[in-house]
Order: sequence, then structure tokens, then C-alpha cells
Amino acid sequence: MGYTRSTDRLIAELSRLPGVGRRAAQTMVLDILKLPQEDAVRLARLILEVKKKTHACVACFNLTEEELCPICSDQSRDRGLLCVVEEAHDLAALEKVKIFRGLYHILGGVLSPLEGIGPEELRVRELLARIGAGSFREVLIATNPTLEGEATALYLGRQLKGAGVAVTRLARGVPVGGELEYIDELTLAKAIENRRDI
Amino acid sequence: MGYTRSTDRLIAELSRLPGVGRRAAQTMVLDILKLPQEDAVRLARLILEVKKKTHACVACFNLTEEELCPICSDQSRDRGLLCVVEEAHDLAALEKVKIFRGLYHILGGVLSPLEGIGPEELRVRELLARIGAGSFREVLIATNPTLEGEATALYLGRQLKGAGVAVTRLARGVPVGGELEYIDELTLAKAIENRRDI
Repeated sequence: MGYTRSTDRLIAELSRLPGVGRRAAQTMVLDILKLPQEDAVRLARLILEVKKKTHACVACFNLTEEELCPICSDQSRDRGLLCVVEEAHDLAALEKVKIFRGLYHILGGVLSPLEGIGPEELRVRELLARIGAGSFREVLIATNPTLEGEATALYLGRQLKGAGVAVTRLARGVPVGGELEYIDELTLAKAIENRRDI
Repeated sequence: MGYTRSTDRLIAELSRLPGVGRRAAQTMVLDILKLPQEDAVRLARLILEVKKKTHACVACFNLTEEELCPICSDQSRDRGLLCVVEEAHDLAALEKVKIFRGLYHILGGVLSPLEGIGPEELRVRELLARIGAGSFREVLIATNPTLEGEATALYLGRQLKGAGVAVTRLARGVPVGGELEYIDELTLAKAIENRRDI
């Protein structure tokens, strides 16, 4: 049930995007109907342009319009340090912090046996090849602190044993500004285990 | 800050839709990048198709691909009963309930002096003309139970005085399944005021 045949089809198409629910798709279509014609045309063109121009960096699989992404081609970055993340938006989140100055490797997801995602479905082979080439001294595995993220980090850690690189993980603990009362028990437990001298 | 020039432009364009935040736009663009090419092409085409084919019903301003919307051209609907709503999605919400069997009139918003929206910006003139034509016996004003919605309902009520139609409003009260503890005081007050014999 919906509005018209063409709106229903657009709602269905938008709803197929994993991040867009049915209700959000409906709102968007009503918004699009209110757009000036030239804005709707620009939106449709940009969707095609993004698909045409943006692709994966040949080195790290970050998004880029060139062969190498801006980070991989930035000669001031530390080429001995590699940070492994799940997706491009994780890279974007880390870049915002402006602390990490090494290179990245985008896995393209996490191991998830239930969904049939094994190492072959991720860019693990490419990761091992990059590290095997020998220029990295440290690999920081920055998968998400979820069950699958942890399992993926453990798996990669095992694969990198004997590769002659330090393998590190983001610190776990209480978030800055968080109130202990509202922090989940597992995080609190990790924060106590990993307590540090001040 | 973002990913590439073309993704940044698409994110900016999507963020201009009132219902889409910046973060949702980013997620969508990453989703779109993962779509098979033919799906992205279909999405872009559907945006243009929706704009081309869908327009306002000449009678009630509901969305339609014909001259009249399916409700206005349905001869089984009660043509003596008119329900006034703010937007097409309100009509869709009411239709889902399958209780109301009259016709609709879509105002296109609510009165909002702060945003410069007066009766001229809404389809008030068209509403008065429809009612003036004389076939309606009752007008149910189903604007949202917000401050602006109430003000608009009051305004329309005044305009319709002496038009020879009953003017009604959706009942206010506690929502079915709601817990009194969590219901706001105004709603509770209305529910007590409007209490009914059982």
C-alpha cells in the first residue's frame, strides 16, 4: 500500500538500501516529489556520477576517484604503520580524530559464519600480501568492539603471528565523559582489567 | 570532510531533503556504492519517473498518476464526508485504518506565522470552494494534534461557520495500549475532560 505506482516502486527501491527503512523511504519520496525539477535531476545524475567516478583505492580499498586514495598518496603519512578497519566510514571516523598518521586497510566487513562471510569474502588475502611485502612495523586492528569485530581481530592476530610485525588493538575502557552508572558491565570489567597507573 | 568529490556532492544533495540527516545521507551513499550498477541506474531512473508521473489530484491534492486519485475516482466512497489532512502521508495513515470512507482534502501543511505560512500558502481557498459547492454534510478536520495543527483546525472551523456543514475533529484521549504513567499531562487532561460513559 502506498501512493502511486511510481512512488511505490521508488519506495521499494530505496528500502532495499540496508540503511534505509520503509518509513524513511516513504518520507524521502514525498520530499523528492516536493523538490524543484532541476534538483531531482541533479540528484539522479549524482547517483550515476558517484557510481561511475568513485571506486576502491588499489592499495587500501578506501574510496577514491584516482588510482590511489588521498591517504595512500600522501607522502607525509607514516608508511610503517597500518590500521585495519571494517569499512570506509570507520576510516572516516578515525581520520576525524587526527591522531593516527599511518595508512589503512579496509577489510570490507567482518567474519560472520552465520552470514557465510569467511576470510575469502573479506580483503584478508590482500592484507596479508601488503604486510608480507615487509614495510610495516605495526598493524593496529581497529575492527569494531562487537562480537564479530573481536573475532575478526583475533583471527587476523593469529594470521599475523610470525609476520614480524607488532599487532595492536584499540584500547578498551570507559568512554570519555561517560557516567559509570550507565556503562555496560563488560566495558566496565575491561576498564578495570586494563587499569593504568596515573 | 568526506570520501571523494562525487560522494561529498551526493551526500550534500541527499542531506538537503528535509527528512534525511547528514549521517543518514553518508550511510546511503556508501550503500549506493555497493549496489550493482543496474540497481543504481534503476534508482536514478525511478527518481526521474516519480517526478514525471506523480502529481497532485485535481480534486483533493492527494498523489496520483491520473487526473483524479484512486480515492476521488472510487464511486463507493461517501461523497458527503470530507476529511482535511495536512499531508499525503496523513491520508495514507488514515486509509490504513480502513474506517473512514469519505473523501479527503490535503492542505499541504499547517498555518505557521513564524515560518510565514498563512492560508494563502495552504490549499484553504480550494477547500472552501469544494465545500461551497455544497455536496458535503460533514468536514472532519484531521490536522495533527500539535500546536500548529490545532491552530489550523481552529482557523478552518471559523472559516466554515455558516457554511452549512458539520465540522468535526478527531477525538483526543489516551492511545490504545498506552500506559497512563507514560502519557503526557496534556493528553491525560484531555482524556479526563472528554471522558465518556461506558
